[in-house]
Amino acid sequence: MGSAMYAGRLNLKTLVLAGTRYGTIALTDVVENYPGFKRLTGLELAEKLEEHALDYKKFVEIEDLKAGKIAKSGKNWKIKTDEGKEFETRTVLIATGTEIKKLGIPGEKEYWNRGVHSCALCDGPIYQDKSIAVVGGGDSAAKEALLLTQFGRKVFIFVRGGELKPEPINGERVKKNKKISVFTNVSIDEIKGDRKKMTALVLDKPVEGKKEFPADALFLEIGHIPLSSIAKAIGVKTNEKGEIVINRNSETNVPGVYAAGDVGDTRFKQAITGVAEGVLAVYSAFRYIGENE
Amino acid sequence: MGSAMYAGRLNLKTLVLAGTRYGTIALTDVVENYPGFKRLTGLELAEKLEEHALDYKKFVEIEDLKAGKIAKSGKNWKIKTDEGKEFETRTVLIATGTEIKKLGIPGEKEYWNRGVHSCALCDGPIYQDKSIAVVGGGDSAAKEALLLTQFGRKVFIFVRGGELKPEPINGERVKKNKKISVFTNVSIDEIKGDRKKMTALVLDKPVEGKKEFPADALFLEIGHIPLSSIAKAIGVKTNEKGEIVINRNSETNVPGVYAAGDVGDTRFKQAITGVAEGVLAVYSAFRYIGENE
Repeated sequence: MGSAMYAGRLNLKTLVLAGTRYGTIALTDVVENYPGFKRLTGLELAEKLEEHALDYKKFVEIEDLKAGKIAKSGKNWKIKTDEGKEFETRTVLIATGTEIKKLGIPGEKEYWNRGVHSCALCDGPIYQDKSIAVVGGGDSAAKEALLLTQFGRKVFIFVRGGELKPEPINGERVKKNKKISVFTNVSIDEIKGDRKKMTALVLDKPVEGKKEFPADALFLEIGHIPLSSIAKAIGVKTNEKGEIVINRNSETNVPGVYAAGDVGDTRFKQAITGVAEGVLAVYSAFRYIGENE
Repeated sequence: MGSAMYAGRLNLKTLVLAGTRYGTIALTDVVENYPGFKRLTGLELAEKLEEHALDYKKFVEIEDLKAGKIAKSGKNWKIKTDEGKEFETRTVLIATGTEIKKLGIPGEKEYWNRGVHSCALCDGPIYQDKSIAVVGGGDSAAKEALLLTQFGRKVFIFVRGGELKPEPINGERVKKNKKISVFTNVSIDEIKGDRKKMTALVLDKPVEGKKEFPADALFLEIGHIPLSSIAKAIGVKTNEKGEIVINRNSETNVPGVYAAGDVGDTRFKQAITGVAEGVLAVYSAFRYIGENE
């Protein structure tokens, strides 16, 4: 939506294929880290960005269609939606985001954003001096746990496998950090709560003598799936995580194709950085169109 | 200010040496391109960002002091302000911005932001179907003029020297663009207006038969001076324009030293991109501190 606003200001005819409006930000209860807005819901932020884009209605259209396939068509790209519509465009910005891997256990849905989260930096600050659990076995579980020690009194990492496997430096830091405890060979079977918020994890075996393990929060770090298949199909380069590789101008390896936000390979994915990448993509597209008329 | 907010959220002790609050954005009358805010003044935006940072007062302090010198001090950096105060810090974020080169002629100050501007993409959209002048002789004059043809009816480039010297591709595009006229060997002596807004340029010799040349806007493209000397003094790499070279994580070549915003070497400098760079810098600093305790 931020990109569409900029494109509109540049008098570029712009179509947003929004799919399910508005993407993951709208699932976030409280956003306190989009600079300029102290506190609003994810949905409110998404709506503000959309309204801003629609201020340039003369050039910007938003459709609730889902882009399904991109194909080269002369100098242009042809986009086919899952609904069967077709559009032709000089440039494409792919901002499809990611899908968070879920545990799929009872209570997960009920306490989503009420204890259960997937972004430590976004939602960690809510849990000052609280008891925080992390589930995951890789480097991002370790990193998120380390980040959460800035806020929580205690941080517990639950690893399903026999071992936490972070990058060595993060492994060292986890070991040294007295706030963190790591439990291996354990699964979470259920998330319990008092209806308002989560209060405990039900484990498949007792940990510290407790099969119902009290915790104020659970951060999922079992993986994100970048929604990059639409890009891969036209030869856009992705990294080992499946994220679209972009440069500082949000350009991919394919001329005229750009990416921004969570689907890209930026190390630190935030709403503000995703919007900025989208803005850079629009400027790159504008230059590309000018140079390839 | 955006970085300070993020640093505060990460519980990092943070001092903003703000110098003259708030930097160039506060000089902009209308900001319509910070995604999420349809329209506000530059000052209002700056104040919102500051208020947001001060929501984390427990960790964030803002002082009206001007950083004058940085020096290494063991693992830390020592910062001396022009006022003679000293602070010690593990990491430094340099977001000193740029100074816009001015013509220094009568009317320039009076009609600043009321016809006289320095950012085509920020303020160009105000001049739909208007007559727009650009002053400058380099590639950025050409690029800004090309951008302004998206909005203006006519765009006039005034070059003091004998020739406009853009990059070849932009030179070609200027030549081909029927909206653009280039005038060489001509200086602007004064900017005239009706008190509310500028209306004409007084030239040192007639152009198209007019010594008083009517124009609705004048965009200055005679140069920006990146305020990077404080960084250069500690070995931070700058490019041929004097901009600080940063990577996608806002890191400079000097460990523990970061840069963001207009002082950096980003191609497309906007409020939103500068804020995002600052946020990336804070995350990089946070990681650096964790890895180098």
